[in-house]
Amino acid sequence: MRMYDLIMKKRNGGELSREEIRFFITNYVNGTIPDYQVSALMMAIYFQKMTEAETYELTMAMAESGEMLDLSGIQGIKVDKHSTGGVGDKTSLALTPLVAACGIPVAKMSGRGLGHTGGTIDKLESFPGFSTALTIRQFEDNVNRIGIAIMGQTADLAPADKKLYALRDVTATVDNLSLIASSIMSKKLASGADAIVLDVKTGSGAFMKKEADAFALAEEMVKIGKSAGRKMKALITDMDQPLGSAVGNALEVKEAIHTLQGKGPKDFTELVYALGTEMLLLGGVAKNEQDAMDRLQGAVEDGSALKKLKEFVEAQGGDPRAVEDESLLPKASVAEEIPSPREGYVSSIVCDEVGICCLMLGGGRETKESPIDLSVGFELKKKVGDYVKKGEALAGIHSNDALKAKEATERFLKAYSFTDKKPENTKLIKGRI
Amino acid sequence: MRMYDLIMKKRNGGELSREEIRFFITNYVNGTIPDYQVSALMMAIYFQKMTEAETYELTMAMAESGEMLDLSGIQGIKVDKHSTGGVGDKTSLALTPLVAACGIPVAKMSGRGLGHTGGTIDKLESFPGFSTALTIRQFEDNVNRIGIAIMGQTADLAPADKKLYALRDVTATVDNLSLIASSIMSKKLASGADAIVLDVKTGSGAFMKKEADAFALAEEMVKIGKSAGRKMKALITDMDQPLGSAVGNALEVKEAIHTLQGKGPKDFTELVYALGTEMLLLGGVAKNEQDAMDRLQGAVEDGSALKKLKEFVEAQGGDPRAVEDESLLPKASVAEEIPSPREGYVSSIVCDEVGICCLMLGGGRETKESPIDLSVGFELKKKVGDYVKKGEALAGIHSNDALKAKEATERFLKAYSFTDKKPENTKLIKGRI
Repeated sequence: MRMYDLIMKKRNGGELSREEIRFFITNYVNGTIPDYQVSALMMAIYFQKMTEAETYELTMAMAESGEMLDLSGIQGIKVDKHSTGGVGDKTSLALTPLVAACGIPVAKMSGRGLGHTGGTIDKLESFPGFSTALTIRQFEDNVNRIGIAIMGQTADLAPADKKLYALRDVTATVDNLSLIASSIMSKKLASGADAIVLDVKTGSGAFMKKEADAFALAEEMVKIGKSAGRKMKALITDMDQPLGSAVGNALEVKEAIHTLQGKGPKDFTELVYALGTEMLLLGGVAKNEQDAMDRLQGAVEDGSALKKLKEFVEAQGGDPRAVEDESLLPKASVAEEIPSPREGYVSSIVCDEVGICCLMLGGGRETKESPIDLSVGFELKKKVGDYVKKGEALAGIHSNDALKAKEATERFLKAYSFTDKKPENTKLIKGRI
Repeated sequence: MRMYDLIMKKRNGGELSREEIRFFITNYVNGTIPDYQVSALMMAIYFQKMTEAETYELTMAMAESGEMLDLSGIQGIKVDKHSTGGVGDKTSLALTPLVAACGIPVAKMSGRGLGHTGGTIDKLESFPGFSTALTIRQFEDNVNRIGIAIMGQTADLAPADKKLYALRDVTATVDNLSLIASSIMSKKLASGADAIVLDVKTGSGAFMKKEADAFALAEEMVKIGKSAGRKMKALITDMDQPLGSAVGNALEVKEAIHTLQGKGPKDFTELVYALGTEMLLLGGVAKNEQDAMDRLQGAVEDGSALKKLKEFVEAQGGDPRAVEDESLLPKASVAEEIPSPREGYVSSIVCDEVGICCLMLGGGRETKESPIDLSVGFELKKKVGDYVKKGEALAGIHSNDALKAKEATERFLKAYSFTDKKPENTKLIKGRI
């Protein structure tokens, strides 16, 4: 078998076989097939697409290119959750202790943030001492003991995807539905969960700007997961403005805590409950949607969700007192308000821009090696559809550098648009697959 | 400027500017831009094509990536000829001394053969002692003194094309008209001729299997050359069966000599005269086609063309006696006949296959480093449209290895097809642009 023939076949619109895909992935990972042939194949795939069978085979080949995590030592149906990412997406912080409190074993691998979207691990490190550097043994033990553990993705998790994604990223071959779906799903399948709930974002702050693309991606991923024998569910949700109010690591942790205390922002709370419902149903813990909602609300009301968060933080070396005493979380030196430049309804907030403003404050990574300031960020006080008076606070900004704060504030204001007429309500949850 | 943006632009159907193409070529040659980005761009070009302007700019950028040969030290209008190659294509061997004898200064750079098609330089080396390793000074001097010189392509001739072609060759991105045209024309333009006659082959033994593709390629190259201020003419000619009778280095040299003696095969003689006519017209040596034909025929009849070949061979270190004494040319140990397996008309000869059979005998290069046996090959006695009796000789085979000869003969016979009804005559010259 020759890589050249595979490129030619795909270029001419042919379908690659299971053996051909395995050949390509195996030899790419071991360095026999050079980058320049793979990037040509990726561009051919961009134009010719991949069939459902090819997409599945690519996903499995990438998943099996490294260690396939065996979670059979953990009791119960392991339900994982994956979000395609966005600005202010602190969902895992609230959702995982909540469903764990309801009896779903949470054994989750997470990543760090890059660019204008944050990562769950960075956010969790706002708890002083918290670490995701667990051994597989500790990881399993924690789940069996307290029902929840989150660890960093190991280097051996789908290494083919890591190598391939890095190449696609510099060759303009990222934007292909099958390649995106196989990249996400290879890691999810290698992470070993029995069931997976996907949160596919759409809108200005999402990777999938168009709703139709988000639905198509969700469908593709659900198909792959089912072919691999996993229980699957996907929600397509809005990321046309930041989720909730907080954008910035420690600020998002606080918002997640508030949500587990029953006083979170409306949109964020709605999303956590919607995803939690799907997880409880897939995990066989709830009989139906109403039952699931009752259990989730019960865990918030009786404090067991918040208690689970404390146990979780403590089990991974963090200071559990920070859950109830916010002063123990990282705090920026200056907190100011950003006044509205005009009166009217907020008609849109360019989501990516808010993420970039947080990055400007030091709250994100420009490169993999960048240090990160956990304390900075924004608290949005007015969101799309809200009425604001001139001079009234649009948002709070938390910063440690006056110059950066000034620049970020200027850019932040440009992300907002206003209108005199009340805009239509946006729907948070756009569909289920 | 970032290569990533250029890939994205082309991928999305945009047109690259002169500056962008220069940026890409300059930085690819100097090693700043990696192969994997270039192969992705090449595949995007395969799908999105290039505009006329882009093709011209790419050609010029590649031509100017190395030394642009300055032939101004040579008197007269320098007319170059280029063939897209095929099996039995010994045209330059006869054509260059012929037009030189008619007063066209021939200052030509040629290449070696690779795969199933031979190269002019290899063929010329059949003359004992002949060398194309000239300095530019010797090259110019020879042309000024005797009107003809052929040298090997220098390493600094369009190095961007060399690097890019090698990459396209292993990434299935060769088959794009603009890329093929720019590759050929970059070398031709860098070689410094004032006028260029192109011989674009079509048929089973040509790179362009389809006639329409050959016409399109010819048009593309003529456009590029004219944009660069060169006089241009292209013939589209048949390569659906080997050209002439001889296939194999020394055998082709003999056939070229015969042709300059007025006793060459009909098709090959027709092609040499047709290309010669265009060269004499572009070079301003002939008033019109009839005048050109008269001059060419005159040079054959009065022996001046053959004399020019001798001068040329001698000037480049070869033994000029070999022009009249064929026993001084390389000779295989065994010459046998290949009898026809049946009676009938030859309906087709799969051209590539004949070339591969010659390669099997040792008459070509499998890799750049392969040694080459100049003596071996075939002499076709029956071509398409000829009638043959069972057992009558289809061809002669010249070999130095009985086993190789047996295998090559078996394969050679498979290249022939027969029919009971006389097939229509094929046209050698299919068009002019």
